Amino acid sequence: MGNVERQPPSAGPAILGKYRDEVEAALVRALSPENSQLLDIMRFHLGWVDEDGHTAPSSQGKGMRSSLCMFACEAIGGCPEQALPVAAAVELIHNFSLIHDDIQDGDTERRHRPTVWARWGKPQALHAGNVMRVLADLAPQHHLNHPIAPETGARCSLVLTSAYLEMIEGQYLDLDFEGRTDVKTSDYLDMISRKTGALIRCAMELGAIAGNGDARAVTAMARCGQSLGYAFQVRDDYLGIWGYEEVTGKAIGNDIRMKKSSLPLVHVMERAGTEERERIQSIYAKERVEDEDVAAVMAILGELGTQEYVQRLAQEHATRARQALEGIGLVPGAQEELDELLSFLIARQY
Amino acid sequence: MGNVERQPPSAGPAILGKYRDEVEAALVRALSPENSQLLDIMRFHLGWVDEDGHTAPSSQGKGMRSSLCMFACEAIGGCPEQALPVAAAVELIHNFSLIHDDIQDGDTERRHRPTVWARWGKPQALHAGNVMRVLADLAPQHHLNHPIAPETGARCSLVLTSAYLEMIEGQYLDLDFEGRTDVKTSDYLDMISRKTGALIRCAMELGAIAGNGDARAVTAMARCGQSLGYAFQVRDDYLGIWGYEEVTGKAIGNDIRMKKSSLPLVHVMERAGTEERERIQSIYAKERVEDEDVAAVMAILGELGTQEYVQRLAQEHATRARQALEGIGLVPGAQEELDELLSFLIARQY
Repeated sequence: MGNVERQPPSAGPAILGKYRDEVEAALVRALSPENSQLLDIMRFHLGWVDEDGHTAPSSQGKGMRSSLCMFACEAIGGCPEQALPVAAAVELIHNFSLIHDDIQDGDTERRHRPTVWARWGKPQALHAGNVMRVLADLAPQHHLNHPIAPETGARCSLVLTSAYLEMIEGQYLDLDFEGRTDVKTSDYLDMISRKTGALIRCAMELGAIAGNGDARAVTAMARCGQSLGYAFQVRDDYLGIWGYEEVTGKAIGNDIRMKKSSLPLVHVMERAGTEERERIQSIYAKERVEDEDVAAVMAILGELGTQEYVQRLAQEHATRARQALEGIGLVPGAQEELDELLSFLIARQY
Repeated sequence: MGNVERQPPSAGPAILGKYRDEVEAALVRALSPENSQLLDIMRFHLGWVDEDGHTAPSSQGKGMRSSLCMFACEAIGGCPEQALPVAAAVELIHNFSLIHDDIQDGDTERRHRPTVWARWGKPQALHAGNVMRVLADLAPQHHLNHPIAPETGARCSLVLTSAYLEMIEGQYLDLDFEGRTDVKTSDYLDMISRKTGALIRCAMELGAIAGNGDARAVTAMARCGQSLGYAFQVRDDYLGIWGYEEVTGKAIGNDIRMKKSSLPLVHVMERAGTEERERIQSIYAKERVEDEDVAAVMAILGELGTQEYVQRLAQEHATRARQALEGIGLVPGAQEELDELLSFLIARQY
């Protein structure tokens, strides 16, 4: 479930490109003081070098979390450079969790390249992830001209740590749900709000803090991030079943084939009558899910309106994300940038 | 290699018992605010509850790092309570690394109980370890009556983070050395000074900082910890081969049987002539090491004086640990407590 970065964006919304170079430079600073031999592993994961440590054509993720952090700072009138260190911290925490996630899930490929563990083995991947987590902690110290005041630093650190703990809680719940067919939609949504939502919320909250936002602005950005995180993950779950094969690289119904209990499945199991529920359970109990099984489950999803439900939910949360910022007085252009991102997030195919 | 907690102490040196209850209470505080379902896993690992979450007869480690932290604070005239939060932090970092180590090494037993991953699976063990690392970060906030000043807190945090990074570096090197027969003794010692030494050094350094020690006292405690860490790990490597079976629960020559390249092996490979070296290499290349193979390697270790070398090295570092504190004016009784611990560490059978 979730958190899969499906494809590098070609021409996504402006926010996702706007801060890219600055953030990458901040990440380079965050990684540079360490002389560790583990660094090349981390550089590889971040898409900067190939498996042998040579400079490679960039193969990075969306950088959504760092972009949102920078955006939140700038949107309330802060100088975006102030948010760079925390943006780097959030991006590193996210990437740390991806390295550990890939170990845990046994995934051998990410962004069309081998995962860290697939290339260096699980023990070293474990270490590389742990070091990246430390570099995330240290990232706020690598500012350019805007050192964070000690009390602001302590506050950012607490926000980041709490979000991180919440994210692990979500990952724990996600594992706990695996193989269960009695998970309620509300429990599933609570899980993703932690697993995916907490760090995205934190990114925007930290951006607002770094931009010297007042309590109202910080709360508004946090709420915007929370809703945006929901919209993002719900659309991710949508794409896991109704994504276009030519874009995602995965056949339609992929999450059914993988027997994942993502939002559409959780929702349909709660809605379905006894007969349909037993039909899905018997398919998920099979060793191997065949094409006709996928088609059968998708037919049930269709009958019970799950596709519409899921997409409507993504749309609702995108609307809430927009509403969260109403009345806090954004700088000119910021609202439009956010709107563009939100439209992209709920319509994206990757 | 290394870091194996062989047996719970029965009647060890006073330092190891003196602070036990206080430290445990601090650990309980560090774990209590979190409502995570992962907590029972951590409580199990710490030896407080059984696999089902019920209170169990304690089955804890030595608590050496937290004891040394408390000792360093008290020995320079500080109130030991001041060091409790950082002592808890160090102990949690140590235990976090044990949880991940066990995943990495595939070890199924620790302190006569299943390891976390053996009981809950590797993914949840990964998360439990990560959460314990966060609780370590947060532990300094759970003080009783002696809040740490913000600047002291920031300093402690930096010392702990640096030590932790150094520890991971050591773990990385340890894995990198695996299967190699050309590791130099000096490289091996450098590795253990990071893998084991860094956190022990950090424990004593933090204790001195928490006890408001001046620069000289802090440096002295750090140097004492560094040497003590060496002595501890070198003796650990000694026990891996010449430990008494009835105490360690492992047959003599165990590390040879496991084909570990601990200090005795690294040393003997550097000293041995071509014939002996090839003999050892051929044994380590075997699928299964038999009793007569163990005996053959031990005979070579005997001829080349490795047992004496290793024990002498432990002794030398214990002496340096003692010397590091000379002239900094310890409170009455502290020198004797340290001496007792050092004597124990280099003569211990568990």
